[in-house]
Amino acid sequence: MGNCCAYLGPQKNTNVRVSLPAVCFVWQIAMIVLFGVFIRYNPESDAHWVEHMRTENISSDIENDFYYRYPSFQDVHVMIFVGFGFLMTFLKRYSFGGVGFNFLIASFGLQWALLMQGWFHFLDHSTGKIYIGVENLINADFCCAGSLIAYGALLGKVSPVQLMVVTLFGVTLFAVEEYIILHLLHCRDAGGSMVIHAFGGYYGLAISWVLYRPNLHLSKRLNGSVYHSDVFAMIGTLFLWMFWPSFNSAITDHGDGQHRAAINTYLALASTVLTTVAISSMSQKKGKLDMVHIQNATLAGGVAMGTAAEFMISPYGSLIVGFCTGIISTFGYLFVTPFLENKLKLQDTCGVHNLHAVPGMLGGFIGAIVAAAASEEVYSREGLIDVFDFEGKHANRTVGTQGGYQAAGTCVAIAFGLVGGAIVGFILKFPIWGDPADDNCYDDEVYWEVRLLIELNESFCLNCIHF
Amino acid sequence: MGNCCAYLGPQKNTNVRVSLPAVCFVWQIAMIVLFGVFIRYNPESDAHWVEHMRTENISSDIENDFYYRYPSFQDVHVMIFVGFGFLMTFLKRYSFGGVGFNFLIASFGLQWALLMQGWFHFLDHSTGKIYIGVENLINADFCCAGSLIAYGALLGKVSPVQLMVVTLFGVTLFAVEEYIILHLLHCRDAGGSMVIHAFGGYYGLAISWVLYRPNLHLSKRLNGSVYHSDVFAMIGTLFLWMFWPSFNSAITDHGDGQHRAAINTYLALASTVLTTVAISSMSQKKGKLDMVHIQNATLAGGVAMGTAAEFMISPYGSLIVGFCTGIISTFGYLFVTPFLENKLKLQDTCGVHNLHAVPGMLGGFIGAIVAAAASEEVYSREGLIDVFDFEGKHANRTVGTQGGYQAAGTCVAIAFGLVGGAIVGFILKFPIWGDPADDNCYDDEVYWEVRLLIELNESFCLNCIHF
Amino acid sequence: MGNCCAYLGPQKNTNVRVSLPAVCFVWQIAMIVLFGVFIRYNPESDAHWVEHMRTENISSDIENDFYYRYPSFQDVHVMIFVGFGFLMTFLKRYSFGGVGFNFLIASFGLQWALLMQGWFHFLDHSTGKIYIGVENLINADFCCAGSLIAYGALLGKVSPVQLMVVTLFGVTLFAVEEYIILHLLHCRDAGGSMVIHAFGGYYGLAISWVLYRPNLHLSKRLNGSVYHSDVFAMIGTLFLWMFWPSFNSAITDHGDGQHRAAINTYLALASTVLTTVAISSMSQKKGKLDMVHIQNATLAGGVAMGTAAEFMISPYGSLIVGFCTGIISTFGYLFVTPFLENKLKLQDTCGVHNLHAVPGMLGGFIGAIVAAAASEEVYSREGLIDVFDFEGKHANRTVGTQGGYQAAGTCVAIAFGLVGGAIVGFILKFPIWGDPADDNCYDDEVYWEVRLLIELNESFCLNCIHF
Repeated sequence: MGNCCAYLGPQKNTNVRVSLPAVCFVWQIAMIVLFGVFIRYNPESDAHWVEHMRTENISSDIENDFYYRYPSFQDVHVMIFVGFGFLMTFLKRYSFGGVGFNFLIASFGLQWALLMQGWFHFLDHSTGKIYIGVENLINADFCCAGSLIAYGALLGKVSPVQLMVVTLFGVTLFAVEEYIILHLLHCRDAGGSMVIHAFGGYYGLAISWVLYRPNLHLSKRLNGSVYHSDVFAMIGTLFLWMFWPSFNSAITDHGDGQHRAAINTYLALASTVLTTVAISSMSQKKGKLDMVHIQNATLAGGVAMGTAAEFMISPYGSLIVGFCTGIISTFGYLFVTPFLENKLKLQDTCGVHNLHAVPGMLGGFIGAIVAAAASEEVYSREGLIDVFDFEGKHANRTVGTQGGYQAAGTCVAIAFGLVGGAIVGFILKFPIWGDPADDNCYDDEVYWEVRLLIELNESFCLNCIHF
Repeated sequence: MGNCCAYLGPQKNTNVRVSLPAVCFVWQIAMIVLFGVFIRYNPESDAHWVEHMRTENISSDIENDFYYRYPSFQDVHVMIFVGFGFLMTFLKRYSFGGVGFNFLIASFGLQWALLMQGWFHFLDHSTGKIYIGVENLINADFCCAGSLIAYGALLGKVSPVQLMVVTLFGVTLFAVEEYIILHLLHCRDAGGSMVIHAFGGYYGLAISWVLYRPNLHLSKRLNGSVYHSDVFAMIGTLFLWMFWPSFNSAITDHGDGQHRAAINTYLALASTVLTTVAISSMSQKKGKLDMVHIQNATLAGGVAMGTAAEFMISPYGSLIVGFCTGIISTFGYLFVTPFLENKLKLQDTCGVHNLHAVPGMLGGFIGAIVAAAASEEVYSREGLIDVFDFEGKHANRTVGTQGGYQAAGTCVAIAFGLVGGAIVGFILKFPIWGDPADDNCYDDEVYWEVRLLIELNESFCLNCIHF
Repeated sequence: MGNCCAYLGPQKNTNVRVSLPAVCFVWQIAMIVLFGVFIRYNPESDAHWVEHMRTENISSDIENDFYYRYPSFQDVHVMIFVGFGFLMTFLKRYSFGGVGFNFLIASFGLQWALLMQGWFHFLDHSTGKIYIGVENLINADFCCAGSLIAYGALLGKVSPVQLMVVTLFGVTLFAVEEYIILHLLHCRDAGGSMVIHAFGGYYGLAISWVLYRPNLHLSKRLNGSVYHSDVFAMIGTLFLWMFWPSFNSAITDHGDGQHRAAINTYLALASTVLTTVAISSMSQKKGKLDMVHIQNATLAGGVAMGTAAEFMISPYGSLIVGFCTGIISTFGYLFVTPFLENKLKLQDTCGVHNLHAVPGMLGGFIGAIVAAAASEEVYSREGLIDVFDFEGKHANRTVGTQGGYQAAGTCVAIAFGLVGGAIVGFILKFPIWGDPADDNCYDDEVYWEVRLLIELNESFCLNCIHF
């Protein structure tokens, strides 16, 4: 099937008929072997549960963590597959790649994440096994999110094999930085402003920077949306937006922790929508709105609340966070993305800089400030211990110190993203991955069997011709 | 970007570059200030929860209201943003406005609703604060729904600034009529047949009646669907339809109340689909179905069960309600909407008259009848008290009296909708809001940057021309 | 509205203006009468719940089954209406029929299922009533799924009246085979590999085989997708894929049962995606992926885990199941579907053979093997009794015997599907149902008012013509 533009130069070899199946098969078999060695059900998902209830004096099945977290898990799952997937269908002719490759790499990533996070956080050293339950599934989905964010910067410019590599390293780096931030630094980051968004955003940007394509303008005709693809993208936007309260509350403490995180995120996101609309309207002739802003910047408030959502930031604090990030993110789309592309040679297809990297970084620092400002008066003594987990060897940590560690954690996440992304970018430069040529980007026909683009009927043709 | 039809007359000034950002910024800042003064976490979302559990002798985190209501809340949230939003994407070239303005006004409306409903229902007079939890979020989403319903009558004919005004007043009126109906009259209306649907429907109709556009036929070319936009609208229809059991059960009593409301709504909606299909098929040549009916009238059963869903209406009673409302709503689309437009000069883009106003009114009266027919035999003594909240100063109310009050409540809701809508309509007639001219309605290009409408490839063009 | 192809022969009478409304009205009225006679609320959804709590010594409202199962119910509901519905929108000009008729028949089917399943499983012989709660709603949705699967084989080739007949008999047959398999044979089949997928798949295939259309190639121009319809279908795919853990865990035992079923299904599905992509890529020139495979075969892992998900199959066991079924299902789409059509005269529009029939059958046998391999060591004594329900007259059944019965159950499901489908197929051959002619299949214009297919603007027309 041809397309409207003339042939523009030599094509790269985009044949992935050997490499893609090989990667899928070998890595999936490796997953099976490693799962066989390491992964077991935890006491809440094992058939010994009835015995476990008796031993632990648990009074009812409803106390199984499944009932605390499964609804949130399903919401997060929707965000990962429909949210991220459909958000990336906005390109006029890369919708298959947007939603399809997202599907592929998230499916691999969550398996690898169960192992990597398991080794770092959940390994029982007495048995050498990782015992999993619903919380692990949520964490695995979170871990994938880092790589999916990176995909946003690379959308349309890489092969599915490269994306698998991005995910393999992305999940690995994620597990390490998460271990450093959450365990060594003992930070709190329930919704992942630092560990997910700042890391994932800078990881994708660094890869994209290394993979800079000087002649990408040759694909310019396809780097944009059509009317219907923008509506498809709104499916992704809205499912991300609506379920973000579940994202930020999915692994917070039972009871008030989950409750508060959901409320804060709900409020921040509402506020973000208004400032996004305001800036978008101000920036255009006659105050017209730009779908790019509505699809993306409206979500920045959820990113920025990823750390602070479980804290006592207070409802109006949440609104302020949303207010500011909506403005910052929309300005990013207006000015920073073009600047990055023209001056820093950084091509960021979806603008993850404005939606994840910067709001994630801000979220980390907001979390640090809110933590440092915590007091027994506001949290109660027990509340403070619960929220910040000031127990064991951290029992004597002050909120000020906690704030410092939170800020340090943000820097660690960014550093991991930048350095890790640069290294992965260089790996992806090897000419073996089947990536498209500069004049062949953003086109599903490279990696997908594309049938008819459109079906029209006789009367239209005649109308058109007789116009 | 031009369009197929010739220029038809002087255009109104649709520039909202000052007014829209101004409204968004000023109102959002007002929200932040008011939230700072009034809104606090309630005991279930506050870090003092552990202390609260001890004081109140609550045995487990699972007793936090979050776990009773959060899954329903998320379903309601999906209905508000994806359900209402995508239901309004059916117009061929107003999908951005349908889903995008819905997003904007719901995001503002829910904040204002938390305040308005808070002042009326949840204000702690000793501290002067409103303490919020998940139930408030659900109520805020409900409150928005009234204004979103009104948007359905106005779709394509108003500017985003006007919609913000509609929402500001809509939420305010809602809070007042809700206070009168639920508190002063002590009605039950968990799913909001009266307070949401009857009010919202008549509110939108009254506004639309005042804003009558005599030359709207000049935009007729755009007042219709294309194939794909009808499929997008089905996303909205189905998410509304599927999650309506959560809508009607979200704030009913814990236990049997939520359980029964979900069952009744599930059954009524199933029944509605069959009668909608029957009437739609009967009305067309060769029995063909009309997408307008399938997208809208199938939902009328959920509207009509909004009051009675928590009562012991019995499963077959629910089926009967669905049966009748499916017929009535489809007849409305066939005969009443054209009649309203031609005879009463009432232009109702989405037919909210048939989907919300009339089924909501019916739902109010059905609730009155079912309440009046309640008996201790069917409900048990305790059940009767629980369901109708016959406690405190209402302890001696009889079911017959309750039925009377329910009917009165329906009338209050309609009156508020009609009078409030008329007033708001007159406010919206001032020539300062940037609304489109009569020949420029239903067109996203007025308020959105619209890029390419469609992308075709060479071979299609040739096929078309050589046809 | 015309279409691009010339008139090809005499048309059948596809007028359903009498038959469709008649079927909808009469059957819906029958439902109301039968519900009036038989269906009542169960103790958990009845207003007597407070008394019931006291009698049964239930400590809290949260112990109401509603809170254990309602989130899963809503996920299943989404799968039935959006999942199945949108999966069938992939045809370029049958999206209305795909999602719309799915909506109609599921709405009828769930009512009939509540009755049929009620009579067989939930009838209280002392009162002659069926007492329903949330678990019945889930089971009713499951029961519909059998008929919706059958619709997949018939998509585009039957009239809505025929589909109602398919559903009436499908639900009836389902209830009988389910009674035999679950009660008489005492099999376990929580996610319905046997009772839903194997039955539904073979039921649809048998009907389609009887309704073989020798000249279906005359409709070939419409038997395919366009770009946007493939994206719509991905909505269906993803909601099915994401919520399948809820499907397989919705009616398993409280506690570890639901928890484990969700984990196993999540893992199997992830694994399926990778092998589907691998085989799809291997099969095409240059390793391009085929949307048909991504939309369908990725789901086979969920089907195949329908029986074993609640067992202690272990996480790596789940990955292996997903690995194999992804391969088998994709091979099915590549080789078996064309073979069936060309050699066995079996036209299977959506390939339900590869997505439901075969993976369902495999799932049944996998369940048998995993059951036969169960041990007290792995399950604990109590766990074994709980999972396999070795109580009452089945207290002495061994796991080996259970495995044999599971295998027998699979055969029963297939037999019911094949024989029942053949009979229903013959019923549908009567020339009274308004089905389309062979040259008129896959076309929404037969049963729907189709307005404009597409809306283009002037500049496009000029571009196209000046091309």
